[in-house]
Amino acid sequence: MELLMHFCQCKLRTVLPRTLSRVGRRNHHCTPQSFHSVHASSKPVAPTPLVSRLFQPSNLREGQEVGDMTCRSQRLMLQAGLIHLSNPGCFYYLPAALRSMEKLVRLIDEEMQAIGGQKVDMPALCAAELWKRSGRWELMGKEMFRLQDRHNIDYCLGPTHEEAVTELLASQSTLSYKQLPLLLYQVTRKFRDEQKPKFGLLRGREFYMKDMYSFDYSEEAALHTYQSVCHAYGRLLDRLGLRWVQVQADTGNIGGTLSHEFHLPAEVGEDRLLMCENCGFSANVETLEAGQTDCPQCHTAPFTESKGIEVGHTFYLGTKYSQVFNATFTNAQNKLAMSVMGCFGLGVTRILAASLEVLSSEDSIRWPGLLAPYQVCILPPKKGSKASEAVHLAEDLVQNIGNILPNLKGEVVMDDRTQLTIGKRMKDANRLGYPYVVVVGQKAMEENPVFEVVCQQSGETVFLSRDALLDLLSNVETV
Amino acid sequence: MELLMHFCQCKLRTVLPRTLSRVGRRNHHCTPQSFHSVHASSKPVAPTPLVSRLFQPSNLREGQEVGDMTCRSQRLMLQAGLIHLSNPGCFYYLPAALRSMEKLVRLIDEEMQAIGGQKVDMPALCAAELWKRSGRWELMGKEMFRLQDRHNIDYCLGPTHEEAVTELLASQSTLSYKQLPLLLYQVTRKFRDEQKPKFGLLRGREFYMKDMYSFDYSEEAALHTYQSVCHAYGRLLDRLGLRWVQVQADTGNIGGTLSHEFHLPAEVGEDRLLMCENCGFSANVETLEAGQTDCPQCHTAPFTESKGIEVGHTFYLGTKYSQVFNATFTNAQNKLAMSVMGCFGLGVTRILAASLEVLSSEDSIRWPGLLAPYQVCILPPKKGSKASEAVHLAEDLVQNIGNILPNLKGEVVMDDRTQLTIGKRMKDANRLGYPYVVVVGQKAMEENPVFEVVCQQSGETVFLSRDALLDLLSNVETV
Repeated sequence: MELLMHFCQCKLRTVLPRTLSRVGRRNHHCTPQSFHSVHASSKPVAPTPLVSRLFQPSNLREGQEVGDMTCRSQRLMLQAGLIHLSNPGCFYYLPAALRSMEKLVRLIDEEMQAIGGQKVDMPALCAAELWKRSGRWELMGKEMFRLQDRHNIDYCLGPTHEEAVTELLASQSTLSYKQLPLLLYQVTRKFRDEQKPKFGLLRGREFYMKDMYSFDYSEEAALHTYQSVCHAYGRLLDRLGLRWVQVQADTGNIGGTLSHEFHLPAEVGEDRLLMCENCGFSANVETLEAGQTDCPQCHTAPFTESKGIEVGHTFYLGTKYSQVFNATFTNAQNKLAMSVMGCFGLGVTRILAASLEVLSSEDSIRWPGLLAPYQVCILPPKKGSKASEAVHLAEDLVQNIGNILPNLKGEVVMDDRTQLTIGKRMKDANRLGYPYVVVVGQKAMEENPVFEVVCQQSGETVFLSRDALLDLLSNVETV
Repeated sequence: MELLMHFCQCKLRTVLPRTLSRVGRRNHHCTPQSFHSVHASSKPVAPTPLVSRLFQPSNLREGQEVGDMTCRSQRLMLQAGLIHLSNPGCFYYLPAALRSMEKLVRLIDEEMQAIGGQKVDMPALCAAELWKRSGRWELMGKEMFRLQDRHNIDYCLGPTHEEAVTELLASQSTLSYKQLPLLLYQVTRKFRDEQKPKFGLLRGREFYMKDMYSFDYSEEAALHTYQSVCHAYGRLLDRLGLRWVQVQADTGNIGGTLSHEFHLPAEVGEDRLLMCENCGFSANVETLEAGQTDCPQCHTAPFTESKGIEVGHTFYLGTKYSQVFNATFTNAQNKLAMSVMGCFGLGVTRILAASLEVLSSEDSIRWPGLLAPYQVCILPPKKGSKASEAVHLAEDLVQNIGNILPNLKGEVVMDDRTQLTIGKRMKDANRLGYPYVVVVGQKAMEENPVFEVVCQQSGETVFLSRDALLDLLSNVETV
């Protein structure tokens, strides 16, 4: 154990004598002498989350103006105290939503790292000079937030980072073909000055995006990387239990020669997708010629049309950016060659909202299992009710789950609002969508205590002993 | 298992027949019929990190302009491929640095949640209107980045979020005293238009900060919360093994009546700290009257002076902001009362750089143990050397550590550059500061294989059998 020397702040005593001298003494070592830092490596324990203390403001549920441009996920997220509007298209993510987003980010990390992705973090402030070199400073128009620093240098708030990452690679003069493919990604806040922000997190001005950039030594290798990322996107959406579709897409202002979008089919979706039942061809309608009614691939079948929420977008860029910034590598013949690039986006906050959009009912949130902010909500009996003595069983349960099941560490919430009936709290739990709701009621008072367990994803209710409950919960997958 | 219907993208085949049809077929289900998503919950496995593939560009180590305004941590971080300069005061965080930062954030999460902190995320775009209400729109001057959206509405990029969080609380009309103290915090990117960014991550224009805001029902309760946060800050710095000091500080443009700074004593520090050896009083010199040479508390002792790097700052705000935004709660008498606030900042990227500044030598990085990007680096024998047959022992070791020691999952790097000597790779490992370097060399060829283990924090070298090595490593604390 290292010797640490701390000096404490005893001035507190002179400033506010009564209160603070006590506080000061309790927590600080007030003699300026060396001492062992005995707690140097003690890990603190987080208290059990209590519903009464969770900041998930219920009055925001009703009081907030939702406005015209609304959709199910936005309404539910506002009502459930998951988000709160700040400026148009900019939201506060409240604690439950942030927990969910952090899980999604861990899932994305797993998938991106499994295909060799390395995580970086690039500045939000991007120099205009870089964007002028790629020609996008003009091209992006009003969609880009622009500003000047105190020296009147122009910047934008990065909506995407092709320029920045290519410049980074170009600065590395010794990149070898042996290091390729190189896949760099980040999960950061992005900015886009939407004309009309709407649908909550689905079309905001400030949002979280995962953007990955790939560098390869040949077109074939780059297309292989492209496919591997598409595959990872599909697997991610599969793991979330979402129905999705991959379609041919427009390259827009990113550029390149090949592009796909990943969509969740949904009525609120802003894109029209056409799918051929015969050969499987599918495309965003904006990539087809106007009025085209037959499949351009098999020419026979009529299209099925669907609306979709775009949650991912992939681009094969070729050397569009690497040529501008001179991002080269040394090839097997020891000569400089141009990197062949791809770029790949996932809307992080958008996936969150879109999955609630497609999984929830009008008034009850349903999460992709892995993304539920908490997996289990335990309802102790109502205070003063016949079952009220069973409250200690509820407390034991929280402890047991925390100690015995590593997958559910920090995942159990206690709805301690025991002034409310079980029924009222059950209604709240149903609306908020905890995957497992455990009621400690009358049946917990029997000689062999039994708990009522509602599995909200399936809608089933079962009655289980403590051991059977722990067994059930030990299978809950978390990330 | 849910039935999922995917439509695949077979258009690929017509666009680029040779390459992509293969890719397309391999990874996509090309018949638009319903099927089971068999891999829906399979968790992917990340490959073992190989030094040859880690993006930690060595040429950035020498090629980059460090400039005049430099310090040890900046130079080491640039040379080791941890960061790369983008714009003045804005850095790319490269993969190793990002891993370290993510560990620091997990540690901060543990400490903040242990004292009841709930994590949120507030927009970077803050409406000028809010800042005008608090009077800080003018006060902040050129330090604040300002911009307009496409409708000519004024915003700033939040350097701090007192206004935003108080407005959030004010919008909750039913906050009860029973819900207090309420501690909301976030770890997000902050922006400050420094006149002269310098010292790498120590004084940047875009950086990560943890900012927490507390709401209490009385001054006494608020001061108790204030103390509990200070205590958590101390514990965090203890867990990092850093020598720190807490001093009385100026309230600056945040305001309030009581403030403290947490410093790491270091020559490069920009603050002058005075500490009384007699009574323990300590203060930032800017809080004392000019020319004061005796301790204002005990009036006897001479001061000891030190320079410090500020890594944390706490403010007791009282009702300064809650009055402006009318952030009230319902008290025990069922009447509205004004929340009593505090705010608490930790420089996340600054702690990272500051700890390298104080722990490293001129040419070798030393990390706080918990923050090392990887805990273990394994060096297999040089290709073609006498020991080269022991390479499989190195591979077994990587597998074993990954499978047997949960604390080291993902924490082991293999330096596969076996064209280089052990000595050359050892030098690199020493410079980059992996806490444990394991050499699989000559002694691994003996009948009872022995590995050379360098514990870089202590500088010790020991020779251990496989089991003794696993035993040693099982005690490595990670976060």
